[in-house]
Amino acid sequence: MNLRKIDCVAIIGVGLIGGSFGMALRKRGLAGRVIGVGRNPDRLRKAVELGAVDEWTTDVEAGVEDADLIYVSTPVSLETQFIQLSADFAKEGCIITDAGSTKALICEEADRLMHDGIRFVGGHPMAGSEATGVEAATADLFVSAAYVLTPTASTDEEALAIMKGVAEGIGSRVIIMDAKTHDRSVAVISHLPHLIAVALVSLARERSTTDQELFELAAGSFRDITRVAGSSPVIWRDICLSNIEEICRAAEGFQRHLAEGLRALESNDAEGFTSWFEAGNEARNSLSRLGSDDEIVDSSS
Amino acid sequence: MNLRKIDCVAIIGVGLIGGSFGMALRKRGLAGRVIGVGRNPDRLRKAVELGAVDEWTTDVEAGVEDADLIYVSTPVSLETQFIQLSADFAKEGCIITDAGSTKALICEEADRLMHDGIRFVGGHPMAGSEATGVEAATADLFVSAAYVLTPTASTDEEALAIMKGVAEGIGSRVIIMDAKTHDRSVAVISHLPHLIAVALVSLARERSTTDQELFELAAGSFRDITRVAGSSPVIWRDICLSNIEEICRAAEGFQRHLAEGLRALESNDAEGFTSWFEAGNEARNSLSRLGSDDEIVDSSS
Repeated sequence: MNLRKIDCVAIIGVGLIGGSFGMALRKRGLAGRVIGVGRNPDRLRKAVELGAVDEWTTDVEAGVEDADLIYVSTPVSLETQFIQLSADFAKEGCIITDAGSTKALICEEADRLMHDGIRFVGGHPMAGSEATGVEAATADLFVSAAYVLTPTASTDEEALAIMKGVAEGIGSRVIIMDAKTHDRSVAVISHLPHLIAVALVSLARERSTTDQELFELAAGSFRDITRVAGSSPVIWRDICLSNIEEICRAAEGFQRHLAEGLRALESNDAEGFTSWFEAGNEARNSLSRLGSDDEIVDSSS
Repeated sequence: MNLRKIDCVAIIGVGLIGGSFGMALRKRGLAGRVIGVGRNPDRLRKAVELGAVDEWTTDVEAGVEDADLIYVSTPVSLETQFIQLSADFAKEGCIITDAGSTKALICEEADRLMHDGIRFVGGHPMAGSEATGVEAATADLFVSAAYVLTPTASTDEEALAIMKGVAEGIGSRVIIMDAKTHDRSVAVISHLPHLIAVALVSLARERSTTDQELFELAAGSFRDITRVAGSSPVIWRDICLSNIEEICRAAEGFQRHLAEGLRALESNDAEGFTSWFEAGNEARNSLSRLGSDDEIVDSSS
């Protein structure tokens, strides 16, 4: 754990994640100065008001030139652009990290863009909610959440250790894995579940045109399962488009498992259906044993 | 609303639902006497201790012969048997109702079994949880939950009105629909989501043998989506086997919607994927407008 205070942190994109990161650093005294960088002065002023950053600017160069750590927490589609600008304007020794929901493409691009002692560490805090914007940010968003760091062959060891210290400092469980493993895993536990939620709630909507009470019957379990379909379509478009191959592979695996259960059901094979359900039941129980469901911070990205 | 007190209620199967029904009646003074009928004396004694019933017996005839209302809340696979026994031993004018998660088969059977002023009203309280047994029962389980009643052509109007009064009396929102519509609807909003949860968590388990940190990354959304896979495989086997046709039809619809999203994704069609996600997003938001997600009692059956 490396908990030395960082003199100057620049956060590019002060929304739910960037804003919460700023609040978490400031609450814990982990940064001397936190500068918010963005495009919308009103929202940046709001970020200062809410205690997410100390100061703000819409000028990327001015925002990042003194920074020891640059935190890029824009939507996935804008990340490369801001990592590049950060690398152009950063001072020597600066660490650039990101909070993108997919890692392979970004890390590859970032490796290409780094130069002269500017160091990149890919990151993905597995925290969030269907809410967006700095108004939804909290200093404790990352507490108990997984924070994935994805070093590449060219990642500086010291930079990785510092980022690990920062992520642990804000309360996260740090998991270090390569970018491809990360993307393959989140396809299964986050991206595909979003697509499933969208498909399921779309079916329900379609059916509700003839079965008008259908939504009135929808109780807690349906709401739980489809909640993530309430996430921003634009943000999710970008996340999914940056992980197409793994999502499609996950979907194939899911459809294979679902087809197995449906086959047993359709042929009235009580024994086969029970074994199939039991396997999932056991897997779900092993997930519960990893930690109380209630203790886990909600995440959708 | 018909809130007249019922002199004697017999509950066959005093588990989560039956136990909660007894507690709800007793707490609200809606029944003169509540008799628990079951097979296991220890569990029935526990039901008395927890305030779910006033008295208990393992003898079905003795349990139901004085009852004005018989509440059959056994697993789906045992329902027909206990509805038949209830009809055999009930006194004239008695109302028999059930709490089964599917309704078409049960209502058809029940219609056949009724005779001489014994009246049946099919019911499905859309309340529950992954927990089972009278230990998990609460007097407020049904509050704000949907309570479906499924009259048939032969259902007595007075019996339906009385059951509506009882369900409203314990705090539920009563929805009256025919049994086939009910089964078609719950296939979409409850049964299929269970199969989806099982398939998804089974895929995650399979992947975790090579991607060992996968479950550690699983945050709130994955836990929400797969929670119902923690339900009892045996109970769910019976529920699903009593609604095969509608579940398979719902699965077809779901797969069609999912394939549409995957097709847009696979062909990198950003616009098509966004429209697809937006349709689900809008449907999910219309569900949220029907009531705060947090206000809704969790349900898994």
